Amino acid sequence: MPTKNDKSYFSSNFTLGILGGGQLGKMMLYETRKFDIKTKVLDASDEAPCKIACNDFVKGDLMDYDTVIKFAEDVDVLTIEIENVNVDALEQLENKGKTVYPPTKALRTIQNKATQKLFYVDNGIPTADFSRFAYKSEIKDSIENGGLQFPFIWKAARFGYDGQGVKVVRKAEDLENLPSGECIAEKMIDFKNELAVIVCRSASGEVKTYPVVEMEFHPEANQVEYVICPARIDDKVAQKAQEVALKVSEKMKHVGLLAVELFQTKDDEILVNEVAPRPHNSGHYSIEASYTNQFEQHIRAILDLPLGDTQSKVAGIMVNLVGAEGHTGDVEYQNMRDILGLKGVTPHIYGKKQTRPFRKMGHVTIVNPDIAKAREIAQRVKETIKVISK
Amino acid sequence: MPTKNDKSYFSSNFTLGILGGGQLGKMMLYETRKFDIKTKVLDASDEAPCKIACNDFVKGDLMDYDTVIKFAEDVDVLTIEIENVNVDALEQLENKGKTVYPPTKALRTIQNKATQKLFYVDNGIPTADFSRFAYKSEIKDSIENGGLQFPFIWKAARFGYDGQGVKVVRKAEDLENLPSGECIAEKMIDFKNELAVIVCRSASGEVKTYPVVEMEFHPEANQVEYVICPARIDDKVAQKAQEVALKVSEKMKHVGLLAVELFQTKDDEILVNEVAPRPHNSGHYSIEASYTNQFEQHIRAILDLPLGDTQSKVAGIMVNLVGAEGHTGDVEYQNMRDILGLKGVTPHIYGKKQTRPFRKMGHVTIVNPDIAKAREIAQRVKETIKVISK
Repeated sequence: MPTKNDKSYFSSNFTLGILGGGQLGKMMLYETRKFDIKTKVLDASDEAPCKIACNDFVKGDLMDYDTVIKFAEDVDVLTIEIENVNVDALEQLENKGKTVYPPTKALRTIQNKATQKLFYVDNGIPTADFSRFAYKSEIKDSIENGGLQFPFIWKAARFGYDGQGVKVVRKAEDLENLPSGECIAEKMIDFKNELAVIVCRSASGEVKTYPVVEMEFHPEANQVEYVICPARIDDKVAQKAQEVALKVSEKMKHVGLLAVELFQTKDDEILVNEVAPRPHNSGHYSIEASYTNQFEQHIRAILDLPLGDTQSKVAGIMVNLVGAEGHTGDVEYQNMRDILGLKGVTPHIYGKKQTRPFRKMGHVTIVNPDIAKAREIAQRVKETIKVISK
Repeated sequence: MPTKNDKSYFSSNFTLGILGGGQLGKMMLYETRKFDIKTKVLDASDEAPCKIACNDFVKGDLMDYDTVIKFAEDVDVLTIEIENVNVDALEQLENKGKTVYPPTKALRTIQNKATQKLFYVDNGIPTADFSRFAYKSEIKDSIENGGLQFPFIWKAARFGYDGQGVKVVRKAEDLENLPSGECIAEKMIDFKNELAVIVCRSASGEVKTYPVVEMEFHPEANQVEYVICPARIDDKVAQKAQEVALKVSEKMKHVGLLAVELFQTKDDEILVNEVAPRPHNSGHYSIEASYTNQFEQHIRAILDLPLGDTQSKVAGIMVNLVGAEGHTGDVEYQNMRDILGLKGVTPHIYGKKQTRPFRKMGHVTIVNPDIAKAREIAQRVKETIKVISK
């Protein structure tokens, strides 16, 4: 644990290690650059968006124990921008006194969706009913002996990302092309809204929550299409959502950013869907809309600096830029000029060279004092820009 | 001149060249990274703040003709983050069809403060009366034969930066330690306020102005201490300031950002002090306060993209972090933690390893819906943080 002396961060002797060099890391690096904090990034790809803006880039496998141990040798604080990392290595580093945030215990709980769901149950945190299966084959048995009814949500216990590893199962055939490993079958929730709350907690326990955001998902891709801040919901519901999110963060003894995805049911109950222990797609709007964006906040939290203001300056809506269906190959952004001509529009291009259907290639933030105006412009952005292959 | 096809910018085939790798370039690179625009930077120092975030860094002398010509060979658009570059090389590149913004003609006019002043006179732009001298010795003659009276402002015609090359001359002795080269003697203006207006003009002629900002200078260092947006002045005066700034930009046929520093006289006349053809210290507040910050705006303008919204989301005040007097050596930022605990405070640390008295080491932006609150907090920031040597 570094000393609270400013010098420990704002000096050339301090290095922050980041596991993962994708878009979340890239946006985190804007903040480390702003604070002039030295960074070292580990990623398997030479084309990782983080590669050029970090002080030290190491190419290597995030899931390889020795690679992670070796990478961390000379870093003062270690964090992640993706959950799929070797948590045994992190635990070993933590046991040896290295500062690792999120804490490995929380990361272990989150990495496995079955474990995550059990955690909610054990801690009295509302979540959708589910069954856990060691193998997909067990699902069939459970259906046959009446233990499980269609429809339900199948979720792979591990390595789900960008909506992969999640599928609505309405009939037996839907199970056919799914991986056979550990998974859960979750009751389908008849919800009014999908919401998210980002909670930040610093090493010394200061806690703040961002406003509740409202998410609109792409029907097939199960990816967020719009993130709307603030959510257009009743204050009571918003307050309940924040209370539930805070409880998750507290029970997990989390440090850093925790993005809590929630369902608002038809009868205004709040259920936890899943969480991410890092800056999150549902918080990208904060770069343009919030007093302190989620990436700076994550840095403040894990370096045990005072947390920044989580309120918004203006309403913000985020549109994900995902690869168009039927396009795979060298990426091309169509009609970028047109969206740059719209009021309050900021595109973020992650710098991935190859596009494929539904791959997250970037996002666009629309800010406006009037949320209804922002929503109109967001719609136009969505309909105008296309991410295709050359 | 690149085609207006989006692909010309938002593709890996396009490279933006930047002359200078200092803090302005560093902040410009946040925006090129955001848009995933490839960059190549030229700077004389291996410790240039830009070095790690650009795609290609070249170490070399900005004032060397051949170095600049060679650097520009493979860039599509060339811009600057500092005026002190070899303008003959830029002119040669421009003549050969390279896209260079700011236009070299404007840059040549601005580079030499005597030429700059004559430009204002020739174009009917209000500015303080002045005399031009080829050598400092001519000033003495002019005083002796009564052509020039004390007090006046001495300005070196070239290479002034960060308040260097400017001095108030009240008596003959004040001239003694000044360089002997080309200079101007400017009438001291009895002003109410120092103001600034940033004008952005795109290659195809779209023009926008940022709100008028109000500047408070450090008495000795002649460096800006606070930049306050919006300026707390009468609307009529603000409108006049913007009109004068627009006229300068138009007459210079400028492309990119032009920061116009102005005096508001006791009788509410607006006089042009000087201009900078690039993002400017007086626009740093825009990163946190504006819909489109000045660095993104400069990129939009020189790439001939639609200009963004120049309005503010909230009031913004900037405090320069300059090296404390009596401190030279490895920099240390004191009480950073304390200012991070204040509402709406964002420090920007430029990453210069060595501090010296009055050197610009960073800046802090304070944003707040209430400008009076922002001013209070700015004062506390100013009184709390210290830039010293270890």
